[in-house]
Amino acid sequence: MSPVASISGFPELLPAEKIVEDQVIDTLRRVFELHGFTHLETRAVETLDELQRKGETSKEVYVLSRLQDKEGTGKSKLGLHFDLTVPLARYVLENSHHLKFPFLRYQIQKVWRGERPQEGRFREFVQADIDMVAQDELPAHYEIDLPLVMGKALSQLPIGGITIHVNSRKVLQGACQALGINDVDAVLTVVDKRDKVGQEVFLQMLAELGLSTVQGEKLSELATINGRLEAITQVRQLGLDSELLEEGLQDITKLLQTAQQRQVDNVIADFKIARGLDYYTGMVYETFLDDAPQVGSICSGGRYDNLVSDKKRRFPGVGMSIGVSRLISVLLSRHALTVTRSVPTAVLVTVTSEQSRSDSDAIATALRARGIPTEVCPNSQKFGKQIKYASMRGIPYVWFTDSSTVKNLETGEQLDATPENWAPDPQHLRPKVKASND
Amino acid sequence: MSPVASISGFPELLPAEKIVEDQVIDTLRRVFELHGFTHLETRAVETLDELQRKGETSKEVYVLSRLQDKEGTGKSKLGLHFDLTVPLARYVLENSHHLKFPFLRYQIQKVWRGERPQEGRFREFVQADIDMVAQDELPAHYEIDLPLVMGKALSQLPIGGITIHVNSRKVLQGACQALGINDVDAVLTVVDKRDKVGQEVFLQMLAELGLSTVQGEKLSELATINGRLEAITQVRQLGLDSELLEEGLQDITKLLQTAQQRQVDNVIADFKIARGLDYYTGMVYETFLDDAPQVGSICSGGRYDNLVSDKKRRFPGVGMSIGVSRLISVLLSRHALTVTRSVPTAVLVTVTSEQSRSDSDAIATALRARGIPTEVCPNSQKFGKQIKYASMRGIPYVWFTDSSTVKNLETGEQLDATPENWAPDPQHLRPKVKASND
Repeated sequence: MSPVASISGFPELLPAEKIVEDQVIDTLRRVFELHGFTHLETRAVETLDELQRKGETSKEVYVLSRLQDKEGTGKSKLGLHFDLTVPLARYVLENSHHLKFPFLRYQIQKVWRGERPQEGRFREFVQADIDMVAQDELPAHYEIDLPLVMGKALSQLPIGGITIHVNSRKVLQGACQALGINDVDAVLTVVDKRDKVGQEVFLQMLAELGLSTVQGEKLSELATINGRLEAITQVRQLGLDSELLEEGLQDITKLLQTAQQRQVDNVIADFKIARGLDYYTGMVYETFLDDAPQVGSICSGGRYDNLVSDKKRRFPGVGMSIGVSRLISVLLSRHALTVTRSVPTAVLVTVTSEQSRSDSDAIATALRARGIPTEVCPNSQKFGKQIKYASMRGIPYVWFTDSSTVKNLETGEQLDATPENWAPDPQHLRPKVKASND
Repeated sequence: MSPVASISGFPELLPAEKIVEDQVIDTLRRVFELHGFTHLETRAVETLDELQRKGETSKEVYVLSRLQDKEGTGKSKLGLHFDLTVPLARYVLENSHHLKFPFLRYQIQKVWRGERPQEGRFREFVQADIDMVAQDELPAHYEIDLPLVMGKALSQLPIGGITIHVNSRKVLQGACQALGINDVDAVLTVVDKRDKVGQEVFLQMLAELGLSTVQGEKLSELATINGRLEAITQVRQLGLDSELLEEGLQDITKLLQTAQQRQVDNVIADFKIARGLDYYTGMVYETFLDDAPQVGSICSGGRYDNLVSDKKRRFPGVGMSIGVSRLISVLLSRHALTVTRSVPTAVLVTVTSEQSRSDSDAIATALRARGIPTEVCPNSQKFGKQIKYASMRGIPYVWFTDSSTVKNLETGEQLDATPENWAPDPQHLRPKVKASND
């Protein structure tokens, strides 16, 4: 046959790969819920009005129309959401009288962007977000708690070490103030690109914004500083005089100290982190894989004071977002993960003949009642073929109904067993995802 | 503020309602995986070509276009999938060389239909499907296994009793043959509507198809028969002479007998079940809530021999689909379910003062390490206010860091505790969904 063409930018996983994604998502859910975050799922669509509040992203939106609908233009048109932050802001305002604040929520959903797909960039992908949203005032420690929760979640994934890089918009804004730079937003955008473009182009871009060599070099110095508490000292030694900068440094210091108290050793200050989006007003975060920093940030976010607000109310918040599909795609393409099998099944029960299939069904029912994923062989061919059915799928055990024995396909060991008492080796109960260097 | 308008047909759940949906979906996943079904997730979009293979559904499709894209017409256009069967068929053909057959998969995803939303009908909703797909030949017992797996899954949900109604297309086609009726598809469509339109209109519709009174009344008699093995006898007593009909009756008999063997008592034969879709070729299934049959079928499906095929290959299968969103919406609107709390949190750790917040954090970290969902109070107000924070959310326990005691808010009991040894009553560890009549 001619293969059915895949659609560019819309990846689909094979069964074993989906097991990796499920285990990643289940782990994130578990850690988020352990920290009291409630699960939110918003509809896939928003009105175009809502999606276009930030003009820059409007070109990425997929717009919906009904095939048979000849009207369907205008502002009531719907588009697929391109992130989980716009839907959160809309949902909180819409349901504020039903929610309790502070509102801690996690959200793990697909988002869509009509961009040209690049390597590791998709048009449809899963994001996993956590946000802490308060009414009127955000508790000060939320800017500290949030990245530590995310760090905890990421540390449970089979992705190797990660490092969370933190900065504060206050530091960057304060530095601009101290240097007499007015167009802070434009400067932040350039700082955000520094790692991509390199030092030389960075200075050139700043010069193009009208900055003097001294201003540019001072910003460049700031942007190269990173580390733990010693980095704070280094920034102070730059001699930039700004209350706002000092406030930002104190916020970061508090975060680094709290991380230390909680024995979290993978958070560092990094003064080039700026984040492109203009709604961040305080701390900003990016996260890198220790083994593959070149992949870029796998989890980013920050504090926003004015994103969720209307004329009368203000819900400041802080959040971070993991690009789950991208992360998994990177891990899979680097062969960094293996899965022990492609089916949930731990035991295949053989069938001696079609007449006695119900005996095999009874064994399977008894095993499943004890939480052991079990299949009954779909055919009653020779045992050799039934064993092959199991081994081709990586099913670790085969149950022989006639002899009441179980064979471990890995060791070849075959033992007497009853479905009421036998249990698989706990490590074989579920498919296991392993980092390849484990 | 003016409330942000909800979009008709795109429901969103509040946190406690989402807990219901999550527990329903988690239960389904667990049961499906216990039976060896692998998890599949397909992209949300298919090409219009793929979606329009069945012309009748084309009008429901949401078509995508990129906001800035001026071209974007023609056959390469994308639409959102309206079920999980079309994507399965496409996925299996596209990835057949990577899959092992028989391929048992479950899929729990949103689907979209641009229909006019009616009560309990949505434009965006979650479906949960299981399918068993084989290469060339479907093992005979799959038509029996599949509804029994689904029945097992549904029986674990807090939805009260359910009954699975089964029929075989062979019975209906055989009856038409025996009665000399040629336009079988049109007759099946009318049989499918019998319950909605009533006996009188049913006979009238058959007459409009050109059926004689005798033919109509015989079909009507058949359509009223339902029950266990005695129903099979009743059909035979109609004296319809057809080998195909007899084959269908034997298939149903086998299913009823197997259900009995496995002590499943909620499967009955029901000869009015026809299913509207023309791709079914064998057994067909519908499922009704015992407490609310008027809701209609909550889980339907059947066997299809030619749905997944191309010029060279054939993958016959059998599947059923639960309308998860609709089911949950019915249960919630009938107040049939309650949830013990709206957050995952089991314990709120109080904060004596902001200076000692890190002591509270340490308690929380120790509890979470033992799998106990824990929040630290975001403020350090008087304990009365902190207790109110917990009680407003239904959090069952409050931990007092200064006195090392835990208060059970339900009983008022307050006991000494250490974070290494104390555990909540297991029934309070997670939010609990209960049927209201429990």
